[in-house]
Amino acid sequence: MLTPDLAAELDAFLIDLNRASGEVILPLFRIDDHGLEDKGGVAGFDPVTQADKGAEAAIRKLIAERYPHHGVIGEEYGEDRPDAEFVWVLDPVDGTRAFIAGLPVWTTLIALRWQGNPVMGSIGQPYVGEIFIGHGKGGGARLINRAGERPLKVRPCPVLTDAIIMSTDPTAYFDGAELGAWRQVAAAAKLTRLGCDAYAYAMVAAGTVDLVAESRVCKAWDIEVAVPLIEGAGGVVTNWRGEPIGRNGGQIVMAGDRAVLDEALVALKRSAD
Amino acid sequence: MLTPDLAAELDAFLIDLNRASGEVILPLFRIDDHGLEDKGGVAGFDPVTQADKGAEAAIRKLIAERYPHHGVIGEEYGEDRPDAEFVWVLDPVDGTRAFIAGLPVWTTLIALRWQGNPVMGSIGQPYVGEIFIGHGKGGGARLINRAGERPLKVRPCPVLTDAIIMSTDPTAYFDGAELGAWRQVAAAAKLTRLGCDAYAYAMVAAGTVDLVAESRVCKAWDIEVAVPLIEGAGGVVTNWRGEPIGRNGGQIVMAGDRAVLDEALVALKRSAD
Repeated sequence: MLTPDLAAELDAFLIDLNRASGEVILPLFRIDDHGLEDKGGVAGFDPVTQADKGAEAAIRKLIAERYPHHGVIGEEYGEDRPDAEFVWVLDPVDGTRAFIAGLPVWTTLIALRWQGNPVMGSIGQPYVGEIFIGHGKGGGARLINRAGERPLKVRPCPVLTDAIIMSTDPTAYFDGAELGAWRQVAAAAKLTRLGCDAYAYAMVAAGTVDLVAESRVCKAWDIEVAVPLIEGAGGVVTNWRGEPIGRNGGQIVMAGDRAVLDEALVALKRSAD
Repeated sequence: MLTPDLAAELDAFLIDLNRASGEVILPLFRIDDHGLEDKGGVAGFDPVTQADKGAEAAIRKLIAERYPHHGVIGEEYGEDRPDAEFVWVLDPVDGTRAFIAGLPVWTTLIALRWQGNPVMGSIGQPYVGEIFIGHGKGGGARLINRAGERPLKVRPCPVLTDAIIMSTDPTAYFDGAELGAWRQVAAAAKLTRLGCDAYAYAMVAAGTVDLVAESRVCKAWDIEVAVPLIEGAGGVVTNWRGEPIGRNGGQIVMAGDRAVLDEALVALKRSAD
C-alpha cells in the first residue's frame, strides 16, 4: 500500500493533471471543423487529434517537472520508462465520436500504476465539470463536481432483471458469438443504453448503471482506470470468464454487484476468448 | 412578429423557467433508487416522475404568477387555456432513460407558442449548465453556458457522406420500412450516433451534428422546441415528406443544411406516413 501521505499527494496531483488537460481540450470542443475547412485554411484539421496531442503534452510536461523519475504511457507520444515504480497511463480524449458530435460524454482517462498494478484511476469530463476518482479495493472512490465532492458507491442489484446495462456499440465491436451473448444479457436486463465509452464506467461507480461489457478494449490507456475506480467504489471488474483482467484488456465486464455479474457471465462466458 | 421588447422579456422569463425547473430536478438526479427501495421506506419511488411533476409544478406556478392569462400544456398536469394567445409547452425531463442511467443528456424542453405557432424554444441541461435557445427563422439562436453566451449556428454540410447523423433508438422506434430507410441514410453518412433524444436537436443547432431523424415523436411537448431552435440557428425541420411538421409530430427530420436534408429525404420519403 502507498502511505496515506503519498496517496494524498498523488491524488491531488491527479486532479491537477485533469485540470491541465481540460484547459487544452475545452477550446477545441465543438469547434466547427466543417467551417474551418470551408475557409480553406486548415486542410485536414482534426480537433480530436489536436486535443489529444495537446493535452497529453501538457500532462507529460507536468509529470516531468514534478516527478521526473515516473514513467508515462500515452497513445500519442508512446512510452517513457514503462517499467518505473510509478507509471502514468493516459488517454486525454476517450470517446472520439462523442467528441466530434459535440456530446459531453467523452472523457479524460488518467491512471497511476505502482509496482506494476493500477492503484489510482480518474475519469474526467471537463465540460460538465466532473472528475470520478478511485483508489482501488478498500481505498474508496469519489466524485468531484461543481457542487463539491461526494463519495461514490456502487448500488446493490442482485438480479439482472433489475439491471441497467451499457455497452458502447455492440454491433460494431462484438463478433457474432459476443453479440449473441450480449443480446441474451440485454434481453434479461431492465434497460440497455449504448454509447458513452468510459463515461459508462463512471456510472457504475456512481451507482446509476449496474453492468458494462466491452470487447476489444485493447489498449492500456482505455482500461487502466477501470479497476481502481470500480473496485474503489465497491464493484468488480473481470474478463468474460470472470477472471481478473490482464493489462491489455480484450473482453471486459464490470458491475456494481457481484451477483448481477455472475448472472451475466453465464451468457458471456460462452463467447469468452 | 413579437415586438423586440416583448421578445426580450419573454426570453428572460424562459431562462427563469429553466432555472426554476433545474432547481427541482437536480436534487433528484442520480438518486440511488435501488438503495432507497432496499431501505424499505419508499416503495415505488420514481425519481423521473418526481422530477417531472415537481419541475412542471414549479414552472406552472411562475407562469401563473407572472402571466396569468397565458396557457400551459404539459405532460404531467394537462392543458390550461390551450387556445390562449400565448401558450407554454413543457417537458421538464425529456430522455427518461438517460436520466435514470445517470447520463447528463436528458433535457428540459420549454417552448412558447404565440397565436398558434411556436416562436421560442429552449433545450436546457441544468447539470451540465446549458440552455440552448432559439427564436425561429431570422430570430437567431444562442447557447448560455458556464462560459457565458454565444450565438448558435448550424454548419454547412452539402453532402451526406460528410454528415454526422443521430436518432434516439431506430430499432425500438422505427417500423420496418422506416428502419430500412434510416439504414440507407446511415450507410451513406460519415458517422452515426444513437441516444440523446432532444439533446441531439441542440447539437444540430450548435453545428456539431448535421441531421437528426425521429419517428413517433408524437406529443407537442417533445417537438415544439425544435422549429424555433433549429430555424433560429439557420437550419430546417420537416416531416419525412419534406413538408412543414404539424403540431403533433410523428416522423420528423431536421438538418443544418438543406442539401443534406434533401439527400436524406430520398430514402426517408419512401417510408413516409
